[in-house]
Amino acid sequence: MRDQVLIYSRFPKAQMVRIGARYDLMDGAGKPPIETFTAGQLKPVRAMITAGGQAIPPAVLDTLPSLRAIICYGTGYDGVDLAETNKRGIVVGNSPAANAASVADLAMTLMLATTRRLLAADDYVRSGGWSGARPSPSMRPRPGMTGRKIGVYGMGEIGRKIAARCAAFESDVAYHSRSRHDVPYAYHDSLSSLAEWADILMIAVRAGADTRHIINADILKKLGPQGTVVNISRGSVIDQAALVAALEGNVIAGAGLDVYEREPHAPDALTKLANVVLTPHIGGHTIEAHAAMQDCVLANLDAFFAGKLLRYPVK
Amino acid sequence: MRDQVLIYSRFPKAQMVRIGARYDLMDGAGKPPIETFTAGQLKPVRAMITAGGQAIPPAVLDTLPSLRAIICYGTGYDGVDLAETNKRGIVVGNSPAANAASVADLAMTLMLATTRRLLAADDYVRSGGWSGARPSPSMRPRPGMTGRKIGVYGMGEIGRKIAARCAAFESDVAYHSRSRHDVPYAYHDSLSSLAEWADILMIAVRAGADTRHIINADILKKLGPQGTVVNISRGSVIDQAALVAALEGNVIAGAGLDVYEREPHAPDALTKLANVVLTPHIGGHTIEAHAAMQDCVLANLDAFFAGKLLRYPVK
Repeated sequence: MRDQVLIYSRFPKAQMVRIGARYDLMDGAGKPPIETFTAGQLKPVRAMITAGGQAIPPAVLDTLPSLRAIICYGTGYDGVDLAETNKRGIVVGNSPAANAASVADLAMTLMLATTRRLLAADDYVRSGGWSGARPSPSMRPRPGMTGRKIGVYGMGEIGRKIAARCAAFESDVAYHSRSRHDVPYAYHDSLSSLAEWADILMIAVRAGADTRHIINADILKKLGPQGTVVNISRGSVIDQAALVAALEGNVIAGAGLDVYEREPHAPDALTKLANVVLTPHIGGHTIEAHAAMQDCVLANLDAFFAGKLLRYPVK
Repeated sequence: MRDQVLIYSRFPKAQMVRIGARYDLMDGAGKPPIETFTAGQLKPVRAMITAGGQAIPPAVLDTLPSLRAIICYGTGYDGVDLAETNKRGIVVGNSPAANAASVADLAMTLMLATTRRLLAADDYVRSGGWSGARPSPSMRPRPGMTGRKIGVYGMGEIGRKIAARCAAFESDVAYHSRSRHDVPYAYHDSLSSLAEWADILMIAVRAGADTRHIINADILKKLGPQGTVVNISRGSVIDQAALVAALEGNVIAGAGLDVYEREPHAPDALTKLANVVLTPHIGGHTIEAHAAMQDCVLANLDAFFAGKLLRYPVK
């Protein structure tokens, strides 16, 4: 008999095909498992797969008395309360760096599309504005990447890949993170200093209680009226209401966002703005990144059910 | 009295401010000059500024008997018939490399936006498709940049900058151009071979009679159903009707275009497609690129009116 694995978050079926070939999957589809399964069905479950960002309340863990492994599909594990899982003897694994290139590439896509006003440009062509020589204030020249000051917040795998890509655009790259890294970019010892210096702020920091709403009205004001924010980390890192206010009031120039405070909801105040580019949390959403994340999930599950340490444990 | 300079193409006024501060500008605004000025006014004109891509028929030159310098704003000079200007003793200058970084950056923007389906992604968020969990075939995972085979056609300043940027995305870069260059990318001795090999074809070749419609149905078929074409060179390089047919028939996957056969017109057959990203010839359209192009135009005009060789002559 194959080992049972609970799917906690809502995943497209295609992403679970390889895992389903090896394990007996119980798909909770993003709802509290007890709504889909009986207490008796949940009682023997020893491992679950989750999206990492989705909170797992203690009440959910209470319905899974045999749970000993939480495996995150992706890099993040901010939805997992590590103190709580420690107490219950549950190990936690993730897919470190598996999607880093894909996420960094999307960060670049958002940065370039936002600063070059790509959505307005495409619309200007399609709507006949260009052929009709319609006045186009949104098409006036804007600063390019050459010599642009790009601040990368967070210097993990994704931050490094973003910085390396930005450097190839002949931009000036600096960073802030908790500690100094062995990288060829100037270090700022505070986020505030980085925002003051930068034209573009790329958010690649790990989400958690310490970084919640750390991008607030004050940081955005420091970024300034030519400033652009790009976030591919987690929505919780930005005070979203402050960001909307800054975008509406031209406190900053624009934003490229892949993540939001309450996914899958992007508020109307954000979706009605012209100076933003919005994607539906697709940073890690390439064929290669999914294959790599599935490799990590399978390696973690295989190790766990073989009674070994996880292959990719969260420290 | 300041020297007179005719403006042949239609330029936004802001782009001519610095030049107008030094020269007496006669703005033809893109029409045959004789429609705006009298023969008597045109007779003494010795220099003109043009956009480079716009054709200058011999009949126009006939109305400018004193013309001895054509200064192109930008890199291209494909609208200038060099045999004709040679015969008439007219020197031709351009703005080499002044906009190369800006154009290369837009090429990357188009490539990333096309391959990551950015327009569909933004629309999916804004239209409420994401929050409503609407099925989204356009949002299924696609190949990312890691290991992607990118063929750069043309290895001038712009081609080199595109290749350097692509390499930073952990992609596999190769190129074709008339001759082999001292660059760290594999050389293909034909465009056909490059298209056969590549997933993505970046067109950075100089436009001219020899490259007209060189990207035809055959090359597009070689690129294949996962293939993407990006063109920031000139519209004439692509057989636009063949491109539309290839995009409609899924012979290739997508295209990112900044240039078109008959600007400022992008045909309805193109603007109605979902698998393209279209920009209104804004490759060189950043503040830095305009400043650099204006520097070149001024240096060329100053040299010409001082009786010297052009600072940036077209060879």
